[in-house]
Amino acid sequence: MKGRDMRIAMIAPLMESVPPALYGGTERVVSVLSETLVRRGHQVTLFASGDSLTQAKLVPCCCHALRLNTEVRDPQAFIMAQLGEVYRQAASFDIIHNHNDYYAFPAARMASTPTVTTTHGRLDLPEYRRVYQAFREQPLVSISYAQRAPVPDVNWIATVYNGIEINNYHFHSEQGDYLLFLGRISPEKRPDRAIEIARDVGMRLIIAAKVDEVDRDYYEHAIKKQIASSSLIEFVGEVNEKEKDALLGGAYAYLFPIDWPEPFGLTMVEAMATGTPVIATSAGSVEEIVVDGVTGFVCRSFHDAIEAVEQVGSIDRHACRAHVETHFSPDVMAAGYEAVYRRLVDPIVVLNTDVVSAPAGQIMDDTA
Amino acid sequence: MKGRDMRIAMIAPLMESVPPALYGGTERVVSVLSETLVRRGHQVTLFASGDSLTQAKLVPCCCHALRLNTEVRDPQAFIMAQLGEVYRQAASFDIIHNHNDYYAFPAARMASTPTVTTTHGRLDLPEYRRVYQAFREQPLVSISYAQRAPVPDVNWIATVYNGIEINNYHFHSEQGDYLLFLGRISPEKRPDRAIEIARDVGMRLIIAAKVDEVDRDYYEHAIKKQIASSSLIEFVGEVNEKEKDALLGGAYAYLFPIDWPEPFGLTMVEAMATGTPVIATSAGSVEEIVVDGVTGFVCRSFHDAIEAVEQVGSIDRHACRAHVETHFSPDVMAAGYEAVYRRLVDPIVVLNTDVVSAPAGQIMDDTA
Repeated sequence: MKGRDMRIAMIAPLMESVPPALYGGTERVVSVLSETLVRRGHQVTLFASGDSLTQAKLVPCCCHALRLNTEVRDPQAFIMAQLGEVYRQAASFDIIHNHNDYYAFPAARMASTPTVTTTHGRLDLPEYRRVYQAFREQPLVSISYAQRAPVPDVNWIATVYNGIEINNYHFHSEQGDYLLFLGRISPEKRPDRAIEIARDVGMRLIIAAKVDEVDRDYYEHAIKKQIASSSLIEFVGEVNEKEKDALLGGAYAYLFPIDWPEPFGLTMVEAMATGTPVIATSAGSVEEIVVDGVTGFVCRSFHDAIEAVEQVGSIDRHACRAHVETHFSPDVMAAGYEAVYRRLVDPIVVLNTDVVSAPAGQIMDDTA
Repeated sequence: MKGRDMRIAMIAPLMESVPPALYGGTERVVSVLSETLVRRGHQVTLFASGDSLTQAKLVPCCCHALRLNTEVRDPQAFIMAQLGEVYRQAASFDIIHNHNDYYAFPAARMASTPTVTTTHGRLDLPEYRRVYQAFREQPLVSISYAQRAPVPDVNWIATVYNGIEINNYHFHSEQGDYLLFLGRISPEKRPDRAIEIARDVGMRLIIAAKVDEVDRDYYEHAIKKQIASSSLIEFVGEVNEKEKDALLGGAYAYLFPIDWPEPFGLTMVEAMATGTPVIATSAGSVEEIVVDGVTGFVCRSFHDAIEAVEQVGSIDRHACRAHVETHFSPDVMAAGYEAVYRRLVDPIVVLNTDVVSAPAGQIMDDTA
């Protein structure tokens, strides 16, 4: 470590390239973080799929994103080979940042270079509780406080919110005339609730969502008929990044009526970046992302949601954009992780200086 | 390590208990090995499913065999927690014997206690080649020489054949009057070939096999009609251990007409233990298990197989049993692994004494 710059190993998932071609939330976050850390002067080594694009030093751990490779039956084999390479080189890094969940834990525990793991997914299966407990000394970063609920008693050292490339989202100062549901058709995302809200308020609803194989039945039996039965509802299927930006920016409000503890709802941030307020159920990370009454509305009931639609006019679209710039930018995320890295690399120095002097919102410190 | 006794950690798969209730080849081998090593005076710690039964010290790594627990969606989480526990205790073992494939490699590489891994499955997927190459220094034991073919250039240190509890198999000195196909209905096991052979020679064939969900189509479309079309063919479905013993012992010959490189055909050994000769295709480990013309016939064509059926009378059923006692007993297997362990625990002493003085057949040494 020379000066403030650090030698950082970044362990990416291998299912998608970094950044991903289409979907792939974790790979997109890893990409934004890696590029930002490079820009901030760090030496970043990215262990990722060989078709990744990065300014960091890329160590290819498979030729192509594994999701696209139909011949691969056992993706874990690639992950273990990746971990072997990372920890073989461990001495040449100041810090190892793991985005591959618990797979890194046995090696991380034994390495002299510290590893920090960001948990990107849900933690509410019993087996996750088991494995996180088994490695309860491992330093973990959550992507929201809500995410920690199923596994509270492990070594959470910070919450660092995901950042997005704000420049990819165009700000619309004018309020649009339709409601939007975006992402994936599945029971826990509650597209049925979105449809109910639109019907009740008599406003157009655009549904831009993919239907995974596993959700095909739900779509065919629970959603398709609802869509067909009203001229207010328009189903446009899966959209690309550019179409998503335009749909979000042109909306009156973004509906996020989920029914599960989503650890970080990235599309809410994307909506706010275009200036569009969010109407969301109070669940998971929602209250940490949406400022109720300022960048949208956090609803506890169907009635709340109907009222929220009527009150959208009171929301300042500039405030939505500003909220994203302040809390969910690449630099805020990178600064948060820099503080985490420093604390692990040199605990004493860091606890006395960096974390205390870090601007509020950059890193949510649990040890204070 | 006091005297010749060793402190051995045994990492078992968690899908089945040790021993397994029904199927589970690897868990059965781990059970036989663990109990035999305990009997031979070693301190064995078995990291396995909590419903396992053993004379070793059991460290439960999940409550019940994971295959029976329909709530578990991510078995790997349990495996990583298991590995965390094994390597946390590593200093209290002389040797760690891993039966969980490549998952142990990253931790194994970093531990000061040596780990040896037995490869129990097929190695012919490209991703296996990748992960084994990535950890090419890891000491590996194959269960047949044939198994190594897809990954020849790694650290193979021995071949130790699987052993069975011979006493569980009753010897039948009299030749039976039917052919037998046993195990699982699937394209690579070639039950269709077994049926063709039986029809051609006009002998009764009993098929005692389960049909997995994944093979349901193959059974319905390729096999069911063949079974129904001939009064010679009798399908009895899945059988338990006791029924298997009786079916094997009562047979004229055991048919093993496989079409894939099976790394170790345990049922061939079980058949020979009851005295029944094996008629098998020349593939995978077959030539290492069956002594052609002595305990059965290794066939290169359909014509070979037909001729073999006619020649079964020339096989001495006692020779079949003796072959198993000499090469596939629990003690032969345990002695083979003891030699492997010693070589890793104290390489110099062992290379000069144990391996060289080990009786032929106990351990197939590659370093000589």
